Amino acid sequence: MPATDLPPEFALIARHFRPLAGPGALDLRDDAALLTPPPGRELVLTVDAMVAGVHFLPDDPPDLIGRKLLRVNLSDLAAKGATPLGYLMTVSTPRDTPEAWYAGFAAGLAVDQARYGATLLGGDTTSTPGPISLSLTAIGHVAPGTAVHRFGAQAGDAIWVTGTIGDGALGLAVALGRLADPTGHLLDRYRLPQPRVGLAIAGIATAGMDVSDGLVQDLGHLCRASALAATIDAEQVPLSDPARNAGRDWLETCLTGGDDYELLLAVPPAREAALRQAASRAGMAVTRIGAFHPGAPAVMVLGSGRKPLAFKKGGWSHF
Amino acid sequence: MPATDLPPEFALIARHFRPLAGPGALDLRDDAALLTPPPGRELVLTVDAMVAGVHFLPDDPPDLIGRKLLRVNLSDLAAKGATPLGYLMTVSTPRDTPEAWYAGFAAGLAVDQARYGATLLGGDTTSTPGPISLSLTAIGHVAPGTAVHRFGAQAGDAIWVTGTIGDGALGLAVALGRLADPTGHLLDRYRLPQPRVGLAIAGIATAGMDVSDGLVQDLGHLCRASALAATIDAEQVPLSDPARNAGRDWLETCLTGGDDYELLLAVPPAREAALRQAASRAGMAVTRIGAFHPGAPAVMVLGSGRKPLAFKKGGWSHF
Repeated sequence: MPATDLPPEFALIARHFRPLAGPGALDLRDDAALLTPPPGRELVLTVDAMVAGVHFLPDDPPDLIGRKLLRVNLSDLAAKGATPLGYLMTVSTPRDTPEAWYAGFAAGLAVDQARYGATLLGGDTTSTPGPISLSLTAIGHVAPGTAVHRFGAQAGDAIWVTGTIGDGALGLAVALGRLADPTGHLLDRYRLPQPRVGLAIAGIATAGMDVSDGLVQDLGHLCRASALAATIDAEQVPLSDPARNAGRDWLETCLTGGDDYELLLAVPPAREAALRQAASRAGMAVTRIGAFHPGAPAVMVLGSGRKPLAFKKGGWSHF
Repeated sequence: MPATDLPPEFALIARHFRPLAGPGALDLRDDAALLTPPPGRELVLTVDAMVAGVHFLPDDPPDLIGRKLLRVNLSDLAAKGATPLGYLMTVSTPRDTPEAWYAGFAAGLAVDQARYGATLLGGDTTSTPGPISLSLTAIGHVAPGTAVHRFGAQAGDAIWVTGTIGDGALGLAVALGRLADPTGHLLDRYRLPQPRVGLAIAGIATAGMDVSDGLVQDLGHLCRASALAATIDAEQVPLSDPARNAGRDWLETCLTGGDDYELLLAVPPAREAALRQAASRAGMAVTRIGAFHPGAPAVMVLGSGRKPLAFKKGGWSHF
């Protein structure tokens, strides 16, 4: 082979990934990317791995896999109040992965990087004897000192969530054949998270995170980080119509299942109007579901008649 | 389970990875890290994936796997002339991976992040039904506009390499039982690359990269990126004593095998003294092995009597 011929890996990169490359990516021809940080801004960095059979189903459409990989990371940026900038990724695939898989995967990324304002800075493609394994490092920016953290909630802050809770976990049940989904809404929500990029939470939320491991468990993280207890009212937790139609037997799944990618925020009552304004500007729904109060870190979920609910998984605790 | 109990993943992170966390990592308790870019510097970003059975052997010692994961990325930073700053990583492991594996892996990272001046900013740990799959995104910085690229070599520039070439590829042959290694040097070089962090190539090299896919193939990349031809003299390519002792039958492996992680640089003759000074300050060896000249992108390797050598793999070409 003459030195000017390139192995198939390079052709794959040129065809499918180079069109995603942004400024500083050096056309993905180099060993590293350059990034001139926006002047006077702080960078926010996050990384997630996704493995076939663990985070997505092997026969999920590849464009949705690409979009989900990007979106779960953008969701982490959104939870900090950060503006997306760019991303690097690794793509490890079995040798017999058809070219159409890469084409679909890249097409999904193309749609969403345009939608959310990020470009590909660099990456690495390798083979694997195992399942498809992906990672994505996302980079965003905030005004210095304004990033929202898990810690910082104050007693008396209300607990808010964006969108609806539980659709992702129910969507997984649909994908596994355990639940009917006549409208397709639940499966779509499982496959394609809606990261709340653009909700301007800096200066409004005292603490926050995205809900990826389940509302109750993730609220437990906020409690621990802020050394507070939390009470939420199950009846106030916003459910989509399809989730409501699934019936009360699925309520625990909604509150403790994962894959919501909604934002969970601590907001002082005095900033409620500001939050509603920010949500309105971003075209997003926000719902108050409870409050933080002094006490050992724990989450209480109240059901009808304000009686505490006990869940098998992830969350319930006495005070 | 009360909300304040954490799943085993969190305990694993707390025990093994939190001690690696640096400023901005928020103790790995948050969803994202913060990075205040060094004022007036440009960032350099690179990412590599490593999969068991592809990039390392499943029974390689875990500390060496961690060190190699970090070092191959630091090698990419070194090739840009960048100073390391921090890194994010993903670690996907089978469920039955023993705790000692994580302890060893993290211990290896601890040694090398101290040695090379980088800290862990963030990460993600997941399970996988397949082989151990790792990724690492490294972040460094350079004075704006001074990063060394693959393009930019000029006709007449000499071709230089750091260290010795071929040890990594021979080390893999040793690991596979195909070659004896009485001193252990070759296997050590395969398992533990020596990234040339600290060689101040900005303003000296007109182009450069690290040699990871084999000297001849990677020189082909520089030729294409700079639209030049290159000739190297096989007798000038620096070999370690163990590589030389392997005999001439292994020369092709040395020149076309991978895993060198030495720097391959284009340096104008007028800057030779500056390169030698920089190498001396960094305690590294540098050797001139050839030159770039006008012509279609191609690599010619001359053997004894300046006769072109033909290789089965990766590189040889007519002019």
